[in-house]
Amino acid sequence: MTIVPKGYSFAVAAAGFKGPGRNDLGLVVSQSPASAAGVFTTNRFQAAPVLVCKEILAKRPLARALLVNSGQANACTGEEGLANCRATLELAAAQAGVTPGEVLPVSTGVIGAQLKMDKWAAAAPQLGASLGKATAMDVAKAMMTTDTFPKLSVKSVALPGGEVRVLGMCKGAGMISPTMATLLGFVLTDADVSPAAWRDILLHAADRSFNALTVDGDTSTNDTVLALANGASGVAVADAKSLRLLRDAVTGLCQELSYRIVQDAEGGTKVAHIAVTGAKSAAQAEVAARAIGTSPLVKTALFGCDPNWGRIVAALGRSGADFDPMAVVLKIGGVLVFEKGQPSPEDLDALLAPCMRHQDVEIELDLGAGRGAFTLLASDLSKRYVEINADYRS
Amino acid sequence: MTIVPKGYSFAVAAAGFKGPGRNDLGLVVSQSPASAAGVFTTNRFQAAPVLVCKEILAKRPLARALLVNSGQANACTGEEGLANCRATLELAAAQAGVTPGEVLPVSTGVIGAQLKMDKWAAAAPQLGASLGKATAMDVAKAMMTTDTFPKLSVKSVALPGGEVRVLGMCKGAGMISPTMATLLGFVLTDADVSPAAWRDILLHAADRSFNALTVDGDTSTNDTVLALANGASGVAVADAKSLRLLRDAVTGLCQELSYRIVQDAEGGTKVAHIAVTGAKSAAQAEVAARAIGTSPLVKTALFGCDPNWGRIVAALGRSGADFDPMAVVLKIGGVLVFEKGQPSPEDLDALLAPCMRHQDVEIELDLGAGRGAFTLLASDLSKRYVEINADYRS
Repeated sequence: MTIVPKGYSFAVAAAGFKGPGRNDLGLVVSQSPASAAGVFTTNRFQAAPVLVCKEILAKRPLARALLVNSGQANACTGEEGLANCRATLELAAAQAGVTPGEVLPVSTGVIGAQLKMDKWAAAAPQLGASLGKATAMDVAKAMMTTDTFPKLSVKSVALPGGEVRVLGMCKGAGMISPTMATLLGFVLTDADVSPAAWRDILLHAADRSFNALTVDGDTSTNDTVLALANGASGVAVADAKSLRLLRDAVTGLCQELSYRIVQDAEGGTKVAHIAVTGAKSAAQAEVAARAIGTSPLVKTALFGCDPNWGRIVAALGRSGADFDPMAVVLKIGGVLVFEKGQPSPEDLDALLAPCMRHQDVEIELDLGAGRGAFTLLASDLSKRYVEINADYRS
Repeated sequence: MTIVPKGYSFAVAAAGFKGPGRNDLGLVVSQSPASAAGVFTTNRFQAAPVLVCKEILAKRPLARALLVNSGQANACTGEEGLANCRATLELAAAQAGVTPGEVLPVSTGVIGAQLKMDKWAAAAPQLGASLGKATAMDVAKAMMTTDTFPKLSVKSVALPGGEVRVLGMCKGAGMISPTMATLLGFVLTDADVSPAAWRDILLHAADRSFNALTVDGDTSTNDTVLALANGASGVAVADAKSLRLLRDAVTGLCQELSYRIVQDAEGGTKVAHIAVTGAKSAAQAEVAARAIGTSPLVKTALFGCDPNWGRIVAALGRSGADFDPMAVVLKIGGVLVFEKGQPSPEDLDALLAPCMRHQDVEIELDLGAGRGAFTLLASDLSKRYVEINADYRS
């Protein structure tokens, strides 16, 4: 049995954005105003719900509810899109018995289409009727699009002051009508933590999880992770030790969810763990890891279980990271592949074949230039990815 | 009948790098020392032939011969790879009756394997016997790997001092044993032009052609374009007008070849012409165009003939280019799609459907932020691309 954080209730409804019978609206309601924090896409085009969330959190870092719809992104929709987004807050707030300014919205789906407000309004009473009857898992399912499984994780954390619970849910790469591989995530806790400390915890966790994965390198207009801490456990988290324990628990939770996003990437069959060390800085390590993790040639080789390590080295070489090519050391699955500018004299094809067949492939690159490090989780690139993303509207 | 520049002869041979019966060695010999220029990959890992070419051209910008092998990249092969590369120059020079320091080598194929020198040496006499009997088209075919057609173009240029001829050949994206989508190109003219002026012409042309296309964003360790001008026409090109005419002819030639590379991209079915204008600088326009042209979501939409313009806008938004989202104007196939932060009210699916079905798709983006402009040619991303690059060695 899952131990859900105290003081939250859940609701879902089927508005018809995703096709008949599938829930596409989800609502999380806290029994009291919760410390609220968010991290958002860095895309210059930001979806209406992203702009509205930022506006609400800038006013007051407290919230009562999180609202998600799948099937419609409400991005690149101008003033009309903003007005529609605010109207959905009114509809949801009325059902939840809170004020619209206490509801944080997220959306995922096709870019450029206006929200179907008639369907939204018709489904609102269903959302209200469901409140308290639905589970967190129902909300995790309602935010799915082409995800093949829901992504939900819960943890219990023993703090000096008592036990608190942390719950995370997210959606990853895929849509029924594929558009952007939007990442949406909710993190809930019943710990009693200040908005400022909660925000620090979320930023720390997101940098080490959601911001350290790639499916296709395309940053969505809608990416959002929202986090609520409602204090319903009665356990105050203010001392350094408790804050660190909670931070580590939230970070671990977000890393689990991130792993599942890559595992469930559109058409994906592999999870590459690309660990770059020895870079001149962490930023340079990230640049190198991302060049490798987004390279179509590396990703197709992963899909084909092909130990074609030259593609990894070549992607590193064009990444823009600064290093001496003679100092680079590459290992795959723990096997030394390349150092001092040339391949290992071993029979690499034979040595690497077994580890290339695993779902998880460990790629370790030491640039020999400093102490910067970054680890990226990356999916492979399959024919199914192309099918999913090409066959839309056909 | 093609009008080949005067004073060049050609040779080919089958060493067996690509499988039985297929020519994989090519040689171009100039009757006299020619002004020689090259542009090379910016990858930090540079193949042995790239390093050797740079070394030769740094000593003296003159050459008598261009040597190509396909099927073996000789990249990431250390000191042994350099020694092998130099040995092939000895072998080719002996057949061509020139000195090894006058031969410029290029290679394409699998990264990380040492050259099969026994096969090379065995094929050398065949190369010598072929000299003068083979055609430029034979060399263009010998450099092919998974290219589905040879890429050769010739032009006659009327200059104030008389007529000169320019010939270009290149290989594009694909291998028999697919590894890097290496770009190799040769440009030949019989104009009499100084090494310095010839180099300027090549740089000008390459920036507007080979450096303005993308198949998969993966810059090879071997990319090389070499250019010879042997003066065999007796037409001196030194005055500003003649230099400009020759430069424009070479640029046009390289643009034709670049178009054919994208047209023949691995698994490609489309050529997207991504024209970004109104950027703060040309560099920012390039950053924006490359983000769009390498986006897997944009490329799969092109493959699927899907007018999913939100993906173009989203890729622009994450590109890092600086602009006001409200000032951006997007047109596809001449149809206004997006401006002032929202979609055109027209029935875009209906309007865009015809132009998405063409091989050539025109994407015009005005960022409204300045005068910087860049146009990129980009291929689409198909299931066949994944097959070609995943099924290697399987």
